[in-house]
Amino acid sequence: MKLYARALLALVVATAIGVASGRQALAQTDPLASWNDGAAKAAISEFVHATTDQSSPKFVPPEERIATFDQDGTLWVEHPIYTQVIYCLDRVPAVVKEKPELANAEPFKTVMSGDREAIAKLSMDDLLKILAATSTGMSVDEFETEVKRWLGTAIDARWKRPYTELTYLPMTELLKYLRANGYRTYIVTGGGQDFVRVYSEQVYGIPPEQVVGTAGGTSYSYDKNGRPFLTKDPKLLLNDDFAGKPEGIHMMIGRRPYAAFGNSTGDQQMLEYTKAGDGTRLAMLVSHDDAKREYAYGPALGLPDTKVGRFTQALYDEATKQGWVIISMKKDWKRIFAFESEQ
Amino acid sequence: MKLYARALLALVVATAIGVASGRQALAQTDPLASWNDGAAKAAISEFVHATTDQSSPKFVPPEERIATFDQDGTLWVEHPIYTQVIYCLDRVPAVVKEKPELANAEPFKTVMSGDREAIAKLSMDDLLKILAATSTGMSVDEFETEVKRWLGTAIDARWKRPYTELTYLPMTELLKYLRANGYRTYIVTGGGQDFVRVYSEQVYGIPPEQVVGTAGGTSYSYDKNGRPFLTKDPKLLLNDDFAGKPEGIHMMIGRRPYAAFGNSTGDQQMLEYTKAGDGTRLAMLVSHDDAKREYAYGPALGLPDTKVGRFTQALYDEATKQGWVIISMKKDWKRIFAFESEQ
Repeated sequence: MKLYARALLALVVATAIGVASGRQALAQTDPLASWNDGAAKAAISEFVHATTDQSSPKFVPPEERIATFDQDGTLWVEHPIYTQVIYCLDRVPAVVKEKPELANAEPFKTVMSGDREAIAKLSMDDLLKILAATSTGMSVDEFETEVKRWLGTAIDARWKRPYTELTYLPMTELLKYLRANGYRTYIVTGGGQDFVRVYSEQVYGIPPEQVVGTAGGTSYSYDKNGRPFLTKDPKLLLNDDFAGKPEGIHMMIGRRPYAAFGNSTGDQQMLEYTKAGDGTRLAMLVSHDDAKREYAYGPALGLPDTKVGRFTQALYDEATKQGWVIISMKKDWKRIFAFESEQ
Repeated sequence: MKLYARALLALVVATAIGVASGRQALAQTDPLASWNDGAAKAAISEFVHATTDQSSPKFVPPEERIATFDQDGTLWVEHPIYTQVIYCLDRVPAVVKEKPELANAEPFKTVMSGDREAIAKLSMDDLLKILAATSTGMSVDEFETEVKRWLGTAIDARWKRPYTELTYLPMTELLKYLRANGYRTYIVTGGGQDFVRVYSEQVYGIPPEQVVGTAGGTSYSYDKNGRPFLTKDPKLLLNDDFAGKPEGIHMMIGRRPYAAFGNSTGDQQMLEYTKAGDGTRLAMLVSHDDAKREYAYGPALGLPDTKVGRFTQALYDEATKQGWVIISMKKDWKRIFAFESEQ
């Protein structure tokens, strides 16, 4: 009887361990673990099931499974200023050192003054001048090296972390979930294509050829050893924002996405274009409504308008009319950043 | 004994069948079966082994395995006139019917006259006017439908077959062989990106997003039902020929190829750019030296120069200097077309 009791005990223990590890496995296999249950999470799951189940009338063949993501404000923090603009501003001293005649020329003089208020007031024209001075005129390899170096050292002011850590954990889960279901994930950003391609693979698992962004031309020439290289030109080829997003998607991908994700007026046309396709399509907008954990902005939320990431009432109204799904950072996201402790 | 003899016979027969089917299997598994043994075939095999063998010092990680192919004259027949030009010329009557005022305007008048000699003398400017009139001003969907329809009905003059059958069998074997070894194959063509994308998947197994070509802009707008669509503009965004090929590769792929294949001066910079990368890189040029089975042209072969697919002495000299491998259609290719009977 004693032996029998021990065997029974062993069985009970083994079963308990089995159940516990089964539960753990189940928890680990929720691909969207950082999402709270709700309309947004449900919309994603339903879309993926409908388009990947062979018996579904909405089945999408693997080669057509394209999902496009805006970057700034959709995959990582854009407030109060785009990361790429910070990069350009940080590069100004080095550029002025090389070309001292710029020290007294605007807008470089203002940037060199360090006067934050004055810098914040720079116009779009000023920023384009700074962009041209800091991001063109060098070879594509030099640009890549410089951006990599900067990303390895620059620290954001609020979280005191590298910018590449300011990605939204629920969105990186979503990228992986879509890829695990045969979707190719693309970034379609108003930001610089060459800039984002430097870190897209490491940060998002998105290879350079799946980054569509605002792109300038390059010029092919030879160095003194006859070795060819490409120089970044200040000539704009693709302004990948607003209507430029579907135009860029057509040029760079040549297929209409089945799912598209954005957060601002610059993403409107990409989401419209996506939803206008046949079959089932998913369009989602990230709403920045979490002042505590991230930021809260946008007239659609009764909050101040911003220069970047404009979430207007008109955009909100179109989302409602077209059946786009709003993602509330506050309600839908359990955690926002990977570095946050779990709630 | 009788039983033993029968068993022995059965064994002999089984062995013979086994050997025969083994031989057949071996023949079937040569991925480059339409290539004769020689320097070109050997260069391909060596390159693939060196870059895909994990123990090789020249190993290339799968994500970096990019191979780029010119189309006209490299993957399919370009002589005596590019297929896309034939498409444009064939479209002229329909365009003139819609816009009768063009009937008496050049170059449309010449095309409508059917005078082959006069048509052959049209200038590049004339051809660009015809291209703009026949391939822009409609939606990207309408263009795709029209090209598909044409490809389904048009027949080439020499072989009396659809143009999509005029692909070089050894090159389609090469595409498959590279893909089987983890390479992503891209078309990088001076031809129209939107044109080639219509049939690239079906004809070459290359999806639209892996076609880089000369590209015009598009404009986003809405139809009367508020449904968005893209219209093809006559504005040139990327002239994907000569230096435009490496520039286009940078823009559309963002990685330097490990292997590149071309046949004319328009491919020179793509091959230079490819070979200038670190590690082992393969650059190959198809030489059209088979007047009987295809065409023979190019000053490098002591043959007349041509408007299309120029194989100049300077290109030949650079190939020799840079270690590019010449593919002789006559010597290296057992069969040129899939529809040919085996030699």
